Amino acid sequence: MASEFEIIEQYFSFSNNNVLASAPASSIVVGVGDDAAWLKLGSEHLLVATDTLVSAVHFPADAEPADVASRALNVNLSDFAAMGAVPQWLTLALTLPDNDEQWLSKFSASLARGCAKYGVSLVGGDTTRGPLTVTFTVMGVPATARTSVASDDPSFTVPSLDGAHCLCRSGAQTGDEVWVSGSLGKGAAALQMITQNHSARAAWPLTDRQRENLHAAFYAPVPQLGLGKALVGVANAAIDVSDGLLADAGHLASQSKVMLELNGDALPMHPALASLSDVALAREWMLSGGDDYELLFTVPKKDHDKVVMLARTAGVACTLIGKVVDCAEYDEKHGESVILNGDGWEKPSASGFKHF
Amino acid sequence: MASEFEIIEQYFSFSNNNVLASAPASSIVVGVGDDAAWLKLGSEHLLVATDTLVSAVHFPADAEPADVASRALNVNLSDFAAMGAVPQWLTLALTLPDNDEQWLSKFSASLARGCAKYGVSLVGGDTTRGPLTVTFTVMGVPATARTSVASDDPSFTVPSLDGAHCLCRSGAQTGDEVWVSGSLGKGAAALQMITQNHSARAAWPLTDRQRENLHAAFYAPVPQLGLGKALVGVANAAIDVSDGLLADAGHLASQSKVMLELNGDALPMHPALASLSDVALAREWMLSGGDDYELLFTVPKKDHDKVVMLARTAGVACTLIGKVVDCAEYDEKHGESVILNGDGWEKPSASGFKHF
Repeated sequence: MASEFEIIEQYFSFSNNNVLASAPASSIVVGVGDDAAWLKLGSEHLLVATDTLVSAVHFPADAEPADVASRALNVNLSDFAAMGAVPQWLTLALTLPDNDEQWLSKFSASLARGCAKYGVSLVGGDTTRGPLTVTFTVMGVPATARTSVASDDPSFTVPSLDGAHCLCRSGAQTGDEVWVSGSLGKGAAALQMITQNHSARAAWPLTDRQRENLHAAFYAPVPQLGLGKALVGVANAAIDVSDGLLADAGHLASQSKVMLELNGDALPMHPALASLSDVALAREWMLSGGDDYELLFTVPKKDHDKVVMLARTAGVACTLIGKVVDCAEYDEKHGESVILNGDGWEKPSASGFKHF
Repeated sequence: MASEFEIIEQYFSFSNNNVLASAPASSIVVGVGDDAAWLKLGSEHLLVATDTLVSAVHFPADAEPADVASRALNVNLSDFAAMGAVPQWLTLALTLPDNDEQWLSKFSASLARGCAKYGVSLVGGDTTRGPLTVTFTVMGVPATARTSVASDDPSFTVPSLDGAHCLCRSGAQTGDEVWVSGSLGKGAAALQMITQNHSARAAWPLTDRQRENLHAAFYAPVPQLGLGKALVGVANAAIDVSDGLLADAGHLASQSKVMLELNGDALPMHPALASLSDVALAREWMLSGGDDYELLFTVPKKDHDKVVMLARTAGVACTLIGKVVDCAEYDEKHGESVILNGDGWEKPSASGFKHF
């Protein structure tokens, strides 16, 4: 069965690299396949990202409406973080089984709080009858333009137009360091906790504080917007960890036509996973659990210290977890674009997003 | 139970009229509540409209994938027609029960044809697992700017920024003529034909040609983009007839704070309704069937001849169906903002969109 990524690649890339004949002043800088589309509108730049959350697929059917709103919004804003872009506007397509006034009231209050927090305005949308589904489309602009992008490599291909610049998946260069923000495994751990779908294997002791943290990590994941902006002009490529570290590293590698070599021992584990007795399970959650909404990015080796500094300024822990290696061995067909090293580390058989 | 319109009004208007503190160069010209949002991005203008179609609500569960794609795209483009705007880009949020390759292949081929036909590019999206739901978000620009907007009325309030101009629901003026493009009732007739949900009352003879026409009217409704563009600078207000003539006339009247007086005898009936023996039913379909995707617009009396001319140029029949009357009697609470005159014409008890 085709993955989401394969579906998009195969069926929905038909407009990529088109410059519209009917609108010569407008063009597509980055189309289908990155965290957001990057468009040129006359003399301005526009970023657009769409995300859908489906009840009982992306959140439990009995989730609180306030939680559904914050999760849907923040997940979408995470795409903007991965582009180093600044979100401004939002449309909402909301499909609801019935007009539950209480549900709507809580959902909209939470959405209004989220909009205020992140400086975005709800500008339009559509409400329809049907199975609960929330689709946000976020629009915004590149972070403050930087006139020069540091690179010693003449083949450096990250798009930069009129000084505007975003982070794309396609810019990773051989020799780059691979970094990840925050910690991994919390998305899967939270999912496990929330669905209470415990097997004996997955049962593990959690403090009340850890439970709260995991609940927040799932329903209000922090979009790393500040870090993303700070990385513009420094990172060569970025993606947010939504499908799972290995899956997203694979997307970045494929689009950059390179390989990523990751060191399992270096991966930053979320503290809640420490009390999990099954080490293999903890590793699986970190590698392929998904829903972590951290930034995975690559940076020229010479800019190592810059990352350390800007991470400190952004107040976000960033960890060096690997390097970009030559694409000579890159095999697009088999998708083996990520190498996993480290003591006893193995790729889980299933990777990427798991449904409820 | 609250209508879609009431839901949007009550719960999702919290960002309207906000100028973003964090982005002083950007602003919302028209926010939630019109056919599209109208945004200012630096020195450029951006229009955005979102529409969701849900399987078994907006189209039959067994609809052809090519038909689903064309209906979803054209319905969304109709919002742009109602703004007099030019669509350029599109994102797709597609929720599918399974990865049916044949379905995807037909859907995407139809979408590619539609994009080519209307000059829009698919620039991004999201595919998820769940009940079949299609959400398009169309982005574009105002039609060629006109530097002056004709109006003798000093209180004329249609927004016009830097020469850019769109059609809004809120600009209707007392004394305006009310026009509608094309013909009415075809959406409801097509729905009846397609669902074969015939009651004795609704059974009526149709030629093969009429069946084809109705099928096309439902699955590939023609967005009146050319007419919409031509009306910029002429019409004071516009909306597309998607919920039903009376419902949409009510939206336009409410937002313009006026009343519309419509003449039932003047309404242009779709030819397929002529053979329907139940006249009351034919009238109901024209008044509240919805899904007609025609433009309902108001024009200063003095510009009557302009409309006749530009309709001819656009190749779209336009019919004068009423006038805008003083808002002294306007009663927001009861929503009785549309008066229906004509021989034996009565408002149907239920109005607006009907589900499958």
